[in-house]
Amino acid sequence: MIFEATIHVMPKKEILDPQGKAVKLGLSNLGLKNIEDVRIGKHITMQVNAATREEASREVELACEKLLANLVMESYEFELEKLR
Amino acid sequence: MIFEATIHVMPKKEILDPQGKAVKLGLSNLGLKNIEDVRIGKHITMQVNAATREEASREVELACEKLLANLVMESYEFELEKLR
Repeated sequence: MIFEATIHVMPKKEILDPQGKAVKLGLSNLGLKNIEDVRIGKHITMQVNAATREEASREVELACEKLLANLVMESYEFELEKLR
Repeated sequence: MIFEATIHVMPKKEILDPQGKAVKLGLSNLGLKNIEDVRIGKHITMQVNAATREEASREVELACEKLLANLVMESYEFELEKLR
């Protein structure tokens, strides 16, 4: 079966997000002054070929922990949707 | 009112995603060979202070078009959730 995984990797709440701060400043300079608390992470989609949803879930967890997220500074969450 | 905006900025489908290709190769080298079609974009959250949902939506659209997305290569979508 093919599953579509949608993964979000975000900087942890207690950690400063310098990229978010830079974007907030940029938006403010563009006149958008009502925007606060900008945080920027990664949005990753992938297709996983697996026999079961549990197996697909394990593959995506491994991918996140070994490559996609730096667990010291980032947390991740994901959803799986069965494509076919 | 405060709205939480969740924005996804993704490379357009018809455009190559070299970062996604690199991650796919990295995952394959880690033994995760059942993963295909990796695409990587940005996941952005922000809080918008606006009188109405329509106003918040306009602010987020402006932010996306002027700063967050390169519309030649990327597309964006967003959701708004009322916080208070």
